[in-house]
Amino acid sequence: MGNNPIEHIAWREEKLYLLDQRLLPHEIAFKVCDSYHDVVKAIKDMYVRGAPAIGISAAFGMTLAAGEALAKRLSSEKTRELLKAAAVDLANSRPTAVNLKWAIDKADQWLSKYDNASTVEIYKGLEQLALTIFNDDIINNRQIGFNGSKLVPQKAVILTHCNAGALATGGFGTALGVIRAAVEEGKIVSVLVDETRPLLQGARITAFELLNEGISATLITDNSAGYLMSTGKVDLIVVGADRIAANGDTANKIGTYSLAVLANYHNIPFYVAAPLSTVDLMIDSGHEIIIEERKEIEVTSLYGKSIAPEGIKALNYAFDVTPAELITAIVTEKGVIKKPDRNKIAAQFREGGFSFEEHID
Amino acid sequence: MGNNPIEHIAWREEKLYLLDQRLLPHEIAFKVCDSYHDVVKAIKDMYVRGAPAIGISAAFGMTLAAGEALAKRLSSEKTRELLKAAAVDLANSRPTAVNLKWAIDKADQWLSKYDNASTVEIYKGLEQLALTIFNDDIINNRQIGFNGSKLVPQKAVILTHCNAGALATGGFGTALGVIRAAVEEGKIVSVLVDETRPLLQGARITAFELLNEGISATLITDNSAGYLMSTGKVDLIVVGADRIAANGDTANKIGTYSLAVLANYHNIPFYVAAPLSTVDLMIDSGHEIIIEERKEIEVTSLYGKSIAPEGIKALNYAFDVTPAELITAIVTEKGVIKKPDRNKIAAQFREGGFSFEEHID
Repeated sequence: MGNNPIEHIAWREEKLYLLDQRLLPHEIAFKVCDSYHDVVKAIKDMYVRGAPAIGISAAFGMTLAAGEALAKRLSSEKTRELLKAAAVDLANSRPTAVNLKWAIDKADQWLSKYDNASTVEIYKGLEQLALTIFNDDIINNRQIGFNGSKLVPQKAVILTHCNAGALATGGFGTALGVIRAAVEEGKIVSVLVDETRPLLQGARITAFELLNEGISATLITDNSAGYLMSTGKVDLIVVGADRIAANGDTANKIGTYSLAVLANYHNIPFYVAAPLSTVDLMIDSGHEIIIEERKEIEVTSLYGKSIAPEGIKALNYAFDVTPAELITAIVTEKGVIKKPDRNKIAAQFREGGFSFEEHID
Repeated sequence: MGNNPIEHIAWREEKLYLLDQRLLPHEIAFKVCDSYHDVVKAIKDMYVRGAPAIGISAAFGMTLAAGEALAKRLSSEKTRELLKAAAVDLANSRPTAVNLKWAIDKADQWLSKYDNASTVEIYKGLEQLALTIFNDDIINNRQIGFNGSKLVPQKAVILTHCNAGALATGGFGTALGVIRAAVEEGKIVSVLVDETRPLLQGARITAFELLNEGISATLITDNSAGYLMSTGKVDLIVVGADRIAANGDTANKIGTYSLAVLANYHNIPFYVAAPLSTVDLMIDSGHEIIIEERKEIEVTSLYGKSIAPEGIKALNYAFDVTPAELITAIVTEKGVIKKPDRNKIAAQFREGGFSFEEHID
């Protein structure tokens, strides 16, 4: 669905199938989640990653929790208790991406709205919600791609970081969605792919997606990007986002901030592509975004092989924050926000976004 | 010798022993070079790396070539022919670090000066030259450390890239020499170590050296440096150099340039520590420095394990060039050149440097 090389998220017979992205590109294997606990683990351990994809997964996690209530024949009241616990666990599975919280909030809103629903109705309602979130994400990515492709010149060399592709989302991708849409429009582009240490989502996943589609891609170490910019080899940069504050400050994979500073220094456009569900209006600025710190072993080893002397300390921040003033534009499903600021972002929200409100009303 | 955790370069019984740095920190093994061809291979395949260390190795390579002439009982004329071939091969083994060329030029100068020398005398002369280059490098590093340590505040958090330590030099190190000297003077410092993809000299070698000496060290991915600077966690940056142009532009390990731009943006001092033998007065500016491009497989795999999909292209520039205007100071054995430029660098050269001229005159 939507230039998705593999059906990496699938809901079948009341189970969630998640492609184990930790094994890419060497192995294609799926984790079957039949409880919300499985989903929490899959998000925490990064079987599934990418802000929109973990949002979608969390929505199915809530559905699985309702399924558990159904199987245990819990009362409507006990079901809501279980769902509350599931919501907390899912929301805490990773701290930085807001899509997780956004999806869970949608479930909460549904539950508040239908406060007399039976357990069966809750299950059906949350399942429908998850499917809608999933489907909307793909539609939004297509629209992000369409909006963003106008920013891509013919024969552009585009640098991207981490993976904001089909596999990070419901399908099609945000940053890679922009690239895909440009290619679909007949533009010839080539992509410089930051490998993105420590977990190598660029090398393992973005390179995999681009290669599968025959889009010209060249892998580079993260520390090469600055030099390539200085030699005039980069026309634009496009990345995804894990959380965008109300003022436009953007949390994304560690290394994004460095790219933005370097792009600024070299007068290269720096674009963020993300659905409005990534914008957190409750967060005033990037200073308030919690940055996840992950285990040292992700830095000190690779594929189980130690790459540093035993006993060395390591720091492993999973994300960083790029201030709005370093972002040339934020591309959402509603349009392109050039020189993003608080007012322009709020204006896009007033245009509305998520289709489920219409869908269930 | 000189805070050298291992005797990584040793000249014994007319053979050169080089620590195989590709295997660090997991294995301590040596490559025994008994011909200059072995030295060419050791430099090319990076058993030995670091600009000063490969300069020293090349000087012993010339000695081994003279030894070959001696074993084959070549005439003085044939010996000089063999040495010419060895000089070309050694100089071409890696293109960016000038210390290689510098050491070979020293041998050439010796050969020109003693144009009546017998093969035995040539062997003895070149051996003495190599030992002097080796020894001088350690002395110079100690002096670089002494000069640079004045730039290190008490309780400084110092970021470094790649390995410019004892193992990159004759001993003690350039950038790490500055850190070691600061510690010897009683300063408490802690070091953020860029892992330095693709070959991980930071993770494997710098971390190893610092850990061995009990200097507080924390490993980070290369793409974390910018974020840490933005949060005020970095007080200064010090790196080594592979070639410094007459105007102060500096080639060093890929990623150095990005650090310099980031340091500039955050008003963090950015220091280069290198002996004068790294300065190439024949090169007017950084634009003329040849940047080595290495094999794609160094980027697409690690320890023989593929980390990217088969068939993906990769770019692997080993070095980049940092323009002088981004360098707060260059620290040499002669002193600290603040805001380096052509005139200040030329002035240091007039003060003289290498001790061998006095030694053999």
